[in-house]
Amino acid sequence: MNTLQQELERIARLVDIYLQPHMTKREPARLWEAAYHLPKAGGKRLRPFLMINVCKALGGNEEDALPPAVAIELIQAFSLVHDDIIDRDDLRRGVPTVHKKWGIPTAIVAGDLLHIKAYDIVTKAAMKNEKVMLVLPDILNEINEATIEICEGQELDEELEKNPQPTEEEYFDMISRKTAALFKASTAIGALVAGSSPEAVESMRSFGHILGVSFQIIDDILGLTADEKELGKPVGSDIREGKRTLLTIHALTSGSPDEKRTILKALGNAKASPRDFSKAVRAVVSTGALDYSTKKARAYVEEARKALLSLPESDERNLLDEALTFIVKRSY
Amino acid sequence: MNTLQQELERIARLVDIYLQPHMTKREPARLWEAAYHLPKAGGKRLRPFLMINVCKALGGNEEDALPPAVAIELIQAFSLVHDDIIDRDDLRRGVPTVHKKWGIPTAIVAGDLLHIKAYDIVTKAAMKNEKVMLVLPDILNEINEATIEICEGQELDEELEKNPQPTEEEYFDMISRKTAALFKASTAIGALVAGSSPEAVESMRSFGHILGVSFQIIDDILGLTADEKELGKPVGSDIREGKRTLLTIHALTSGSPDEKRTILKALGNAKASPRDFSKAVRAVVSTGALDYSTKKARAYVEEARKALLSLPESDERNLLDEALTFIVKRSY
Repeated sequence: MNTLQQELERIARLVDIYLQPHMTKREPARLWEAAYHLPKAGGKRLRPFLMINVCKALGGNEEDALPPAVAIELIQAFSLVHDDIIDRDDLRRGVPTVHKKWGIPTAIVAGDLLHIKAYDIVTKAAMKNEKVMLVLPDILNEINEATIEICEGQELDEELEKNPQPTEEEYFDMISRKTAALFKASTAIGALVAGSSPEAVESMRSFGHILGVSFQIIDDILGLTADEKELGKPVGSDIREGKRTLLTIHALTSGSPDEKRTILKALGNAKASPRDFSKAVRAVVSTGALDYSTKKARAYVEEARKALLSLPESDERNLLDEALTFIVKRSY
Repeated sequence: MNTLQQELERIARLVDIYLQPHMTKREPARLWEAAYHLPKAGGKRLRPFLMINVCKALGGNEEDALPPAVAIELIQAFSLVHDDIIDRDDLRRGVPTVHKKWGIPTAIVAGDLLHIKAYDIVTKAAMKNEKVMLVLPDILNEINEATIEICEGQELDEELEKNPQPTEEEYFDMISRKTAALFKASTAIGALVAGSSPEAVESMRSFGHILGVSFQIIDDILGLTADEKELGKPVGSDIREGKRTLLTIHALTSGSPDEKRTILKALGNAKASPRDFSKAVRAVVSTGALDYSTKKARAYVEEARKALLSLPESDERNLLDEALTFIVKRSY
């Protein structure tokens, strides 16, 4: 049996090999290079890993799950390219963002192209593979719904930044759509392609959702604590951009007046000094927000672990279980 | 039999009624309003008209063609919302553009949402309608390919603006993708939904393509000659934005050195005075570019008229023929 690391690398290679001819055969070269830039820059390929291993755990074939897995990775890439324009981020996966390198007009269109290629890859796979064709409308439904939720989550995220008193409930609604929706679609499509019952598909949808929620909380934690090398983008950028994370919401709800003042001075304030940012990070930590968020994330991960038990015992279930441990460990 | 005008209005109503519940039932309201803004603002619904009438002329049903017709209208709307951000246009169909009213971040996401809803509407229709389900992968292929071409055409358009010596060949390649591709998809899908043979689908694809090319040339002419009320956007904006149209390319190729100088002074120059713009417009006209382009557009329309003859004689074929006359008349 592969270790988790070996399996992630194996799937990353499969995705890369499958994707390459889809992104390199057309003109104008400048646009296609811009579109290929982010998918080529790597990433953990966690969603393809989840889809393929759920599919196999339920008795399905890897070949059938690979095209929708690549499509999900493209949906993720498309939304990141557009998000980075919106958030004015300069770095992603350790490389310049698309709009930084090619300008905003080309980045908008490059994101659109990745979006279409997701549908194109699933459509072409269905035309060649009867098993995919049988569930094509269901796969499309999962992708459509998840992508609509990502758009809604993106808008809610922006609205939350302008909300003076954001609540945890609003935060969880936002990340359910912005982050968990695509995890949910990945695990549900894995079950669909395996030809599973509606109940099994629903169990896996729920597993993906819980996993996605914990993943986002841990991302929030890393946004505060990780260094630039681990993160692939500048430290403290969540605070600089005024993002409402579980940490800042907790800190602003339960911090002392002094702590709150220090945080609000830097939160979303592009003109704040590096010293203001360090002070704000320390203030967030001193409210206990880090411990609080870590506990929440771990509780969700344990819930996801239980949801995994609905799968038959298998190497793939073990790998999925290991992945949960890996996701929590990222926050150490 | 309906007149063309009655038929266009009837189809516009059908499209609006079908679309409305898809755009008004979800939160956050701000995002969905922004997404619905352009489709609600009207438009000629020429592509749905073409799809539905091709389908009926080939013996198909209007009910089967309506959902993909709405989807094509949403693809058109999505690409316009993103185009307007790229071109910094403030007005479209006589109303403020989405980014002007809601800001660029929401406009990017609203465009993405329209894009997804196109796929969502086709997917849901296929799940309820066996005739649509039978050709679902073919419909998706047409939509995917057309939308990829729109993205490529958008990039080529920008590259053309920076090209000091753009040729007619480059121009026709650009508009084939940016404009004609979606006309081509509309007429091809009309034939697909009617259950037509691959040859009939190919004939209609070719009809839509030629029609789309003539439509764009006439749009270029109107961009120079129509007033703001007819156009729904400021006169001369093509020249202000530095767009390479058939008119400016012809003028820059065959104008006198004086005419060229006058045109280049205003073309793409945001700082040029209103007087510079008027002079540039007059210089374009004096090179004969207007006559040249009108002749070209008419030749394409007559070619499209011939392609129509592959359809069985029918009320719908007559309406499609009338539409060709209408398209040319716009340029008077």
